[in-house]
Amino acid sequence: MRMYDLIMKKRNGNILTKDEIHYMIEGYTRGEIPDYQMSAMMMAVYFQGMNEEETLQLTMAMRDSGEHLDLSAVRGIKVDKHSTGGVGDKTSLALTPMVAACGIPVAKMSGRGLGHTGGTIDKLESFPGFTTGISADTFLKNVNEIGIAIMGQTAQLAPADKKLYALRDVTATVDNLSLIASSIMSKKLAAGADAIVLDVKTGSGAFMKKEEDAFALAREMVTIGKGAGKTTIGVVTDMDQPLGRAVGNAMEVKEAIDTLMGRGPADFQELCLTLGTYMLLAGKRASGKEEAESMLKEVIANGKALDKLAEFVAAQGGDSKAVYNPGLLPAASLSEDVTAAEEGYVSRIACEEVGICSLLLGGGRETKESVIDLSVGISLHKKKGDFVKKGESIATLYANDRDKLRQAIKRFEGTYGYCETPVEIPSVIKGIVE
Amino acid sequence: MRMYDLIMKKRNGNILTKDEIHYMIEGYTRGEIPDYQMSAMMMAVYFQGMNEEETLQLTMAMRDSGEHLDLSAVRGIKVDKHSTGGVGDKTSLALTPMVAACGIPVAKMSGRGLGHTGGTIDKLESFPGFTTGISADTFLKNVNEIGIAIMGQTAQLAPADKKLYALRDVTATVDNLSLIASSIMSKKLAAGADAIVLDVKTGSGAFMKKEEDAFALAREMVTIGKGAGKTTIGVVTDMDQPLGRAVGNAMEVKEAIDTLMGRGPADFQELCLTLGTYMLLAGKRASGKEEAESMLKEVIANGKALDKLAEFVAAQGGDSKAVYNPGLLPAASLSEDVTAAEEGYVSRIACEEVGICSLLLGGGRETKESVIDLSVGISLHKKKGDFVKKGESIATLYANDRDKLRQAIKRFEGTYGYCETPVEIPSVIKGIVE
Repeated sequence: MRMYDLIMKKRNGNILTKDEIHYMIEGYTRGEIPDYQMSAMMMAVYFQGMNEEETLQLTMAMRDSGEHLDLSAVRGIKVDKHSTGGVGDKTSLALTPMVAACGIPVAKMSGRGLGHTGGTIDKLESFPGFTTGISADTFLKNVNEIGIAIMGQTAQLAPADKKLYALRDVTATVDNLSLIASSIMSKKLAAGADAIVLDVKTGSGAFMKKEEDAFALAREMVTIGKGAGKTTIGVVTDMDQPLGRAVGNAMEVKEAIDTLMGRGPADFQELCLTLGTYMLLAGKRASGKEEAESMLKEVIANGKALDKLAEFVAAQGGDSKAVYNPGLLPAASLSEDVTAAEEGYVSRIACEEVGICSLLLGGGRETKESVIDLSVGISLHKKKGDFVKKGESIATLYANDRDKLRQAIKRFEGTYGYCETPVEIPSVIKGIVE
Repeated sequence: MRMYDLIMKKRNGNILTKDEIHYMIEGYTRGEIPDYQMSAMMMAVYFQGMNEEETLQLTMAMRDSGEHLDLSAVRGIKVDKHSTGGVGDKTSLALTPMVAACGIPVAKMSGRGLGHTGGTIDKLESFPGFTTGISADTFLKNVNEIGIAIMGQTAQLAPADKKLYALRDVTATVDNLSLIASSIMSKKLAAGADAIVLDVKTGSGAFMKKEEDAFALAREMVTIGKGAGKTTIGVVTDMDQPLGRAVGNAMEVKEAIDTLMGRGPADFQELCLTLGTYMLLAGKRASGKEEAESMLKEVIANGKALDKLAEFVAAQGGDSKAVYNPGLLPAASLSEDVTAAEEGYVSRIACEEVGICSLLLGGGRETKESVIDLSVGISLHKKKGDFVKKGESIATLYANDRDKLRQAIKRFEGTYGYCETPVEIPSVIKGIVE
C-alpha cells in the first residue's frame, strides 16, 4: 500500500477501505507518512468528502492511535459530555456536579481555551490551588469516592488526532464535517465513557454558524458514536448570543455557582437541565425525562449539587470555601459600563465579538503560550429580547489594565443591535439528534 | 500575507493575485513556506483550477525563482523546441542539426530520461566521449561558431519548478493543465530563447492520452508563452504508436542519422519537417511554410544537416566518426524477434508498453539512480496500418542479458492488435496551436 495511491484514489472521488484508512493513520502517527502527503489527502477529502463508513473508520483509527483511558475501575455507567465550544460556556462547571449528585460518575478530560472560547480547566483554576495534574490513580479514586474528577487531555490520547488537527489547522482543511466529527469523536471514544452527550453549538459565537451545519455535525457524530457501539445523543443549542450573562473565567465560575444555588440565568439553567436529563437517561439513572429533570432540580434545591462541586474542588487541591463564598474568587480592579446607543429591543448580540472582547481584556489566549487573567470578563445586563432605554447600561466590562479596558470597550460598542418592535427570546435548545 | 489565507482563498474558488502567487513561490523556494502547505495548495488548485492570468503569474514566478540563461551573446533569433515526451522520440537529434544548418542558432538545455520515455542527453551519450558538462562560455561559443550546443539542465534554472514538481509527484497533484503548462514553460522561459516551438504528444505513449487534453495543454502553453512576450507555437503530434521504428538510445541515434541522410521513417521525417518549418518561421529564416520546408529538405539532400550533427558531436567531445559510420555506436549482443500471432492489419500498438519493454531491456531508468544500457532497444518492423502475416516478424528486441530479454519479449507480445480490414495510417501531425 502506498499513500500516493490513496491520495489519488480519494482525489478521484473513490471510497477508501477500512484497511487503507488504518494504514494511513497508523503510518502518519508513526511519522512514516509525511505531512505533505497527509495535507494533500486532507484537501482531497475536503473536496470529495468521506462517507459514513469512511468517517467511522477514520475515527476508529485515530481512537486507536494511542492509549485508551481505562475506566473499568469506575462503578456505574460513565456518561461523558462534550461541547463544541462557545462564548460564556461554563456548562461543565454546573452540569457535572448536578449529574454527579444524581449518581452519574463523571470521569472527564477537559481542555484549555484558545481564541474567543474559554476552557473548563482555565475556569476551574479560578479556585485557588485547583489542579488537573493528578495521577491516574487519584483520578479513578476520586470518581469512585466523590463521583467526579477532571483531568487535562494527555498526549497519549488519540495522538493521531492531535497531529492531524495541527496539520489541518495550518492547511485550511478544518471545515469538513467528517474530519470535524471524527476529530471530536476519536478523543471522546478513547476517553472511555459508555455514553456520550454532545452539546453542538450554533450561531455567531459557534464554530458552526448555520443551524443546518450544526445539525449535520450532530448527526455525523451521533452516527459515529452509535457505529462505535456507544449511546450517543446530540443536543443542538444556541450560541447566537453568549450563554448566560457572564463571560470570563472566574465570572463564569460564579455564574455556575449561582446556577447550582437555583438562581442562574434562565437560558443556562435550561441548557443544564436538558443536557443533564439526557445524561441521566443515558446513564440509566432515570426512566423518563420528567423524572430526570425533577432529580436535577432536587439536587439544586437541596444543595447537594453545590456540595458536590465543593467536594470535587477540594479533592483536586482547590479552595472549596470559594464555592460558598464566591467573593474569594479572583476579581478585577477596574470596571466600566457600556450603555445603549439607542432605545429598543435587543435584536442581535455579535457573539464571537463578545468573546474577542473578553480575550482583549486578558481573559483568553491568543496563542497557546498566552497567560490568561482569570479575574477579567464581561457581565451582560441585557440579552436578546430585552428592552433597553438609550443610555441604560447593557454590560459591565472588568479589567486590570486601562488600555485593555479601553480597547475592549471600543470593540464592544458595536456588538448590540436593536429594533423598535418586540423580539422573541430565542430558545436555547434548537433540537435533539439521537 | 499568510500562506494559510492563500490556501483558503484558492480552496474557496477565488483567484490569487500576482503578488500572492509571487509571495507563495518565493517563500516556497526559500523554504519559508513548508511542503505541507504547498501540497494542500496544489490539491486546492487541482480542484479549483487557475485562470489564464494566474497560470501566467505562476510561470513567471517560477521562471524568476533562479537564474536566467543569458543568451544575449548568441547572434540571431534563438528558437527553442520542447517535447512533452514519448516513446522513440529522437526528434531533437535530427531536428536541431537541420534547423542549425538553416541558420537557426540552437542553444538548448536537455534532460535525461525517466520511466518509459528517454532523454536527449542519454541518447547523445551513445557517441563515445560526448558530454554535456561544458562551461557556459564553451556553450555560447559553440552556439555562435557551430550553430548548436546542448547542455544539461542546471539546478539554478527555475529551482521553484524543480522543488514543486518533486512535491506534486508524490502528492497526486501532477494532472492539472495549469500546473503542467507552467512547469514546462517556466523552464523554457528561463532558458532564454526568443521563440518556442512545442511538440505536444498525445496517445497511449504520451502523458496526455486524450487528444483534447493535448490541445488544451498546447493552448495553455501557447497562451503563457505569448503572455511572456515570446513567439510560441504548439504542434500536437501522435504518440499512439512509437515515433519512427527505433526505441532505445543508440538505436534512436542511428535512426536520427538515417533521417538526416534522407532515409528515415516517414512519420519521423514528417514530424521533423513540420517542427523545423515552424522553427524557421519563428526564427524569421523563411517567409513561408513552403520556403521553410524546401530549405530543410535541401540541408538533408546536400548533407549539411548531417555534417552539422558531426560538428556538434565533436565540439562536445564525442566521436563524430560514428555519425558517418553508425556501426561505431554501442550495439547489443543478443537479439530476438517477436512474430505476429495472427494475420491482419496492425490496428493498435500499446505505445507506453513498448517504452516499458525498452526499460526492461535496460534502456531506461526506473529510478533516478539507475544506470542505463545505451545499446539495447527495440526495432519495430510493422507499424499501424501495415499488413502482417501470421508468424511474420513484427519487431526485434536487442539486449545484453538473457533474463531481461525474456522478460521484455513476454511483455512485448501483448502490445500489437490486429484487424481484418485495412486500417488508416494515422497522421503524425494532429494540429497546430498558435
